[in-house]
Amino acid sequence: MTAPYADLANIASHTKHIIVTAQHMDGIDPGRGMGAVLPESIYQAGARAVFLNHAERPLQLAELVQSIEKAQDLGIKTIVCANSLEEARSIALLKPDILLCEPTELIGTGKTSDESYVQKTNSAIKEIDPNIFILQAAGISTPEDVYHTLQMGADGTGCTSGITEADSPAKMLEEMIEAVNRIYKEREEK
Amino acid sequence: MTAPYADLANIASHTKHIIVTAQHMDGIDPGRGMGAVLPESIYQAGARAVFLNHAERPLQLAELVQSIEKAQDLGIKTIVCANSLEEARSIALLKPDILLCEPTELIGTGKTSDESYVQKTNSAIKEIDPNIFILQAAGISTPEDVYHTLQMGADGTGCTSGITEADSPAKMLEEMIEAVNRIYKEREEK
Amino acid sequence: MTAPYADLANIASHTKHIIVTAQHMDGIDPGRGMGAVLPESIYQAGARAVFLNHAERPLQLAELVQSIEKAQDLGIKTIVCANSLEEARSIALLKPDILLCEPTELIGTGKTSDESYVQKTNSAIKEIDPNIFILQAAGISTPEDVYHTLQMGADGTGCTSGITEADSPAKMLEEMIEAVNRIYKEREEK
Amino acid sequence: MTAPYADLANIASHTKHIIVTAQHMDGIDPGRGMGAVLPESIYQAGARAVFLNHAERPLQLAELVQSIEKAQDLGIKTIVCANSLEEARSIALLKPDILLCEPTELIGTGKTSDESYVQKTNSAIKEIDPNIFILQAAGISTPEDVYHTLQMGADGTGCTSGITEADSPAKMLEEMIEAVNRIYKEREEK
Repeated sequence: MTAPYADLANIASHTKHIIVTAQHMDGIDPGRGMGAVLPESIYQAGARAVFLNHAERPLQLAELVQSIEKAQDLGIKTIVCANSLEEARSIALLKPDILLCEPTELIGTGKTSDESYVQKTNSAIKEIDPNIFILQAAGISTPEDVYHTLQMGADGTGCTSGITEADSPAKMLEEMIEAVNRIYKEREEK
Repeated sequence: MTAPYADLANIASHTKHIIVTAQHMDGIDPGRGMGAVLPESIYQAGARAVFLNHAERPLQLAELVQSIEKAQDLGIKTIVCANSLEEARSIALLKPDILLCEPTELIGTGKTSDESYVQKTNSAIKEIDPNIFILQAAGISTPEDVYHTLQMGADGTGCTSGITEADSPAKMLEEMIEAVNRIYKEREEK
Repeated sequence: MTAPYADLANIASHTKHIIVTAQHMDGIDPGRGMGAVLPESIYQAGARAVFLNHAERPLQLAELVQSIEKAQDLGIKTIVCANSLEEARSIALLKPDILLCEPTELIGTGKTSDESYVQKTNSAIKEIDPNIFILQAAGISTPEDVYHTLQMGADGTGCTSGITEADSPAKMLEEMIEAVNRIYKEREEK
Repeated sequence: MTAPYADLANIASHTKHIIVTAQHMDGIDPGRGMGAVLPESIYQAGARAVFLNHAERPLQLAELVQSIEKAQDLGIKTIVCANSLEEARSIALLKPDILLCEPTELIGTGKTSDESYVQKTNSAIKEIDPNIFILQAAGISTPEDVYHTLQMGADGTGCTSGITEADSPAKMLEEMIEAVNRIYKEREEK
């Protein structure tokens, strides 16, 4: 669960089971960096994961390399976003914990990535590094979207507007979690 | 006193007399903006002032206008940084609460702005808007620097490395505050 | 008339009456700056005017100050873009030759700025510096738009898609120029 | 040979043997993009190669992917800069024509990359794609630097200040070219 930087500590103090996640951090050490997001500060606040390179906060390649290194030093899991297949492959080489494939043009649209995009990015990433956990995320708005996306081979999915704009966000979230559980159970049975 | 975003709430809960200050915020409303610094989040965390346009986090003019407007809506005081005389004048028109004049090339050097820069920026700003509180900040490292800078007409000054790298930061801070008190007393006596 | 940097020299060598205009330049001197737009290079190519701070190439305030200074040193006229009234006022203090008022949300829409925006920005700019030439530009698509905008007090207007997407771009351009001539004649007669 | 955008056409018209090279381009198509560097414009001006991701003009990963694709479409060779080993590997996956390894902290210092950096980046890149031409570039200032760098396995090297600040730039350039010829001859003889 991601939250604004200033809310991280409050959320971390009220939850036990959620991995509190920052929306970005800069790959810097304490010192200069007025206005930057200091990795040590989000760690102290309780964040144990961080998004990097989201379409709304894209990073230069050198910045991305530094942020991933810094996160590994501190024990913060990295969720790195990729738009195209080419980006996904380049990012996979940088050993993120989680790679989130999300065609920029579909974010917030309610349209999911097509099967060909999902399969190509999945297999390209696994070929480079089978240990990376893959999320396929764009346009997820129903439990069926979740089920279908995981069925295509993703390890997980993501969802913001599909939950926050549902009639009952809590119910939607529960049903989506059930869809994930169903898939993982089916996989074990195979 | 400024602090990383994730530390604001903790500091605010442990102090009564300090105006907790964020190092930057984006002029956005809740909604889109993954990784941005949401004004509502720093306000809820207890921040009542914000730096904008620091040399390490410079803003586009349109962004600066939006951030100042948003701060005014929320009741957050703005401390806007200017490098050159031209910048100081342009920013004065935007009605910040505090205008911090700090030649970029002097930050962290221990060299203070020269008298001519201080006087020119002071009078240019006061001419445009006499209600703006003026800080003159670059290279302050001793209580004498503080006294001298205020004597030249500034309403206040700023200091980071001069305090954090002093033999006794607490003692240095106290002596700097005394220097400010001395000047304000002298002004009243006139 | 603006053109890509690499086309400036060719256009300048084929025209006598058009002021060849670059779409941006960086306020730097020869030396470091790989990939930047060197002011001396566009001047040598024949550019005698430059756009700055267009909504598609917004500048930090410090960059804008430097680019305007550099343009004045070289004898390049500056056309600086403003979105909001606040931006227009701040920019007017920086003494651009031309100030282009263009609400960002209307660019390319075919909708012109409303009368209130045009009048407020015109009078705010003239109050700060009556020598600045004012263009009002968003959404101009017909000769009538040109006539109406100048009638509201602008010194000129701008147009891109309205011309390039007209059935006959050359005819549209001629009719727009006639609309400008008509207004200037009417002004003289008063 | 790189040059400012506005000088490309002039240089291209005066030379036959040099591959005229732009210092950057944006991965865009004709249309929107005021102030951007339009790929079609530098191609028409005669550029047949382009630097991308130089330390003075770093690119977001998504931008880099788009610029490389666009260059391939137009027939412009790409010279993509990498700082760290991690960057070099990620970039190698994107199939640039030339990969320029240059630790950012050494640019313009006259200090060359150390042997370990050169060998590690060379072998990492060749492992991913043996067809990429590798330049090792930081701090080259003498013909001996050129010879030594190529001896360590680079396909070429780069040099700016070492030539422009030599007593006789033309003589320095000739001697550096001789050093390259010497190495290539020695390689053939093996």
